[in-house]
Amino acid sequence: MGFHYDVTVAWGDCDEMGIVFYPNYYYWFDTTFHAFTRERGVSQRAIRERFGALGTPLVDTGARYRAPVRYDDPIRIVAEIESWSTRSFRLRYTVLRDGDTVAVEGHEVRAWVVPGPDGSFKAGTIPEAFREALA
Amino acid sequence: MGFHYDVTVAWGDCDEMGIVFYPNYYYWFDTTFHAFTRERGVSQRAIRERFGALGTPLVDTGARYRAPVRYDDPIRIVAEIESWSTRSFRLRYTVLRDGDTVAVEGHEVRAWVVPGPDGSFKAGTIPEAFREALA
Amino acid sequence: MGFHYDVTVAWGDCDEMGIVFYPNYYYWFDTTFHAFTRERGVSQRAIRERFGALGTPLVDTGARYRAPVRYDDPIRIVAEIESWSTRSFRLRYTVLRDGDTVAVEGHEVRAWVVPGPDGSFKAGTIPEAFREALA
Amino acid sequence: MGFHYDVTVAWGDCDEMGIVFYPNYYYWFDTTFHAFTRERGVSQRAIRERFGALGTPLVDTGARYRAPVRYDDPIRIVAEIESWSTRSFRLRYTVLRDGDTVAVEGHEVRAWVVPGPDGSFKAGTIPEAFREALA
Repeated sequence: MGFHYDVTVAWGDCDEMGIVFYPNYYYWFDTTFHAFTRERGVSQRAIRERFGALGTPLVDTGARYRAPVRYDDPIRIVAEIESWSTRSFRLRYTVLRDGDTVAVEGHEVRAWVVPGPDGSFKAGTIPEAFREALA
Repeated sequence: MGFHYDVTVAWGDCDEMGIVFYPNYYYWFDTTFHAFTRERGVSQRAIRERFGALGTPLVDTGARYRAPVRYDDPIRIVAEIESWSTRSFRLRYTVLRDGDTVAVEGHEVRAWVVPGPDGSFKAGTIPEAFREALA
Repeated sequence: MGFHYDVTVAWGDCDEMGIVFYPNYYYWFDTTFHAFTRERGVSQRAIRERFGALGTPLVDTGARYRAPVRYDDPIRIVAEIESWSTRSFRLRYTVLRDGDTVAVEGHEVRAWVVPGPDGSFKAGTIPEAFREALA
Repeated sequence: MGFHYDVTVAWGDCDEMGIVFYPNYYYWFDTTFHAFTRERGVSQRAIRERFGALGTPLVDTGARYRAPVRYDDPIRIVAEIESWSTRSFRLRYTVLRDGDTVAVEGHEVRAWVVPGPDGSFKAGTIPEAFREALA
C-alpha cells in the first residue's frame, strides 16, 4: 500500500553539528514521492502526457524531528497516501533510522494543477486513474 | 521586533515548472534565523562561547504555500518569535513576494541543546539573555 | 567591468568539518552569474524575449579551493568575463573572504542555446547585444 | 578497481530548462566518493578513528558537461582513483546516462588533513592503508 525509498546519509547532507540539515528531509520527501509515482506509472512526465496536468505543487508541508540522523546512517523514507480531496491529496512520510527508529514524521499536501490562461496554472480535479495508481 | 532577510530567487532555486523547489523555503527560513541571531549577537558561535550551548536544532517545521514564486522574483523573509517555552521556542516566517503578496507562511520550533554524555547532546534551559537578545 | 555578489555563509552551507560544502561554491557562481545578467538587463527571462534563446547551460566548470570558509564568514563572489567565443563564453570567479583573502578561484564556460527540433535545444551564435551588455 | 553509484534524477535536481542544475553533479561526485570510502572501510568516521585524520577536503574540482540529463533519467556515477600524491589524491568521475551515454566527466583533488594548532587543520601524509583500501 505504501512505498519506501532508501538512502544513506551523505557528507553534504549534514551540518556542523554532524546531524542532517533539516531542509534535506523535505528533499527526500519530494524524491520519495517522485520515485513512488514513477513506480506506479504516474510520474510528472506521465501525468502530463496522460492527463494534461502540469504537476503536483505543494500546498502544505511539515515535519517533526524525533531522533537525530547522522552522516553514514542508512535511512528509509516510507510514504503513504493519507487522504484524497477533489483537487489535492495528503501524503504521510516516516523516516526510519537503523531499521526501526522513527527519526522524522512529515507530510505533504499536493495540489493537482492544469494549464491556466497565458501560461499560468490553476487547480484541477484529480483523475480517478491517478488515485487508483497510488492506491 | 521582527527581522527580515531579502533574497532574489536564483535560477537553481526553481524546478522544471519554473517555481521555487519547496525545500528551498526551509533553507531560507534557517538562513533568516541565523542572520537574525547574528544581528542580535547570539549566533551559533556566540551561544557556544557565551552559554555553552551546542545549537538550536529543529523539533518541528512547517509551511503553507499560498502564491508561486519564480526565478528573479525578489522576496522578503520576515521572522518573528511566536512563543517561548523553557527549552524550546517557536518562530513564525512570512515570505513576501513583490513587496506585499504573502507567498509562504511557515514556522520552526527550535530546541536549546547542550552537551550530553559521550559527545551526544541533550535539551537544556534557554538562558534569559538569549531570550532578551531576540525580543 | 566585473560584478560582485556578497553573501554571508549560512549554517546549512557548511559540513561537519565546519567548512563550506564545496558544491555550494558552484551554486554561488551560478547565482552571481544570474545576478550579473539581471543587472545588465540580459537575464534568462530577458534573453528569451529579446533573442529567442533558451538559456546559457554549462559546458565546463571548475574551482580551486585555497582557504577555508566557515559559517558566518562574509564572502564576496567576483565575476568577470574572461573570453568570448562565437557560441560560448568563459567567466572567471574569485571568492574573497574577509575582504581580501582569496578563498576560491573558479570558472564557468557557458553555451548559448536556442530551440532545436522537437522541443530539444542546440547551440547558437551569441548576439552582439548580449556581449555588449556584459562588457 | 573503480566504484559506481546509481541514482535516478529527482524533480528537485533540475532547473527550469528541465536539465540537471549543475552543482548537483558535484554533490553526486562527493556522495559517490563517500559511498566508495564507506564500502572500503575508510569512511570519514573510520579515518578519524583509525588514522586521526580530520577529513579529505577539496583542493580542486571540475567537470565538463557533454550531454543533458533530465528528471527521471537513471544515471551512474563511476569513480576511479586517477593518481596519488603524498598529501593528496585525484579522482576521476564519469556520469553515464541510460547506460552508456557519457553525460559528464569530472574530477576531484582531495587533501588529507589532520588536526593543527588551536582547532585548525593542516595537510598530512596519506597513510598507506588508506591508499590500499581504495586500490
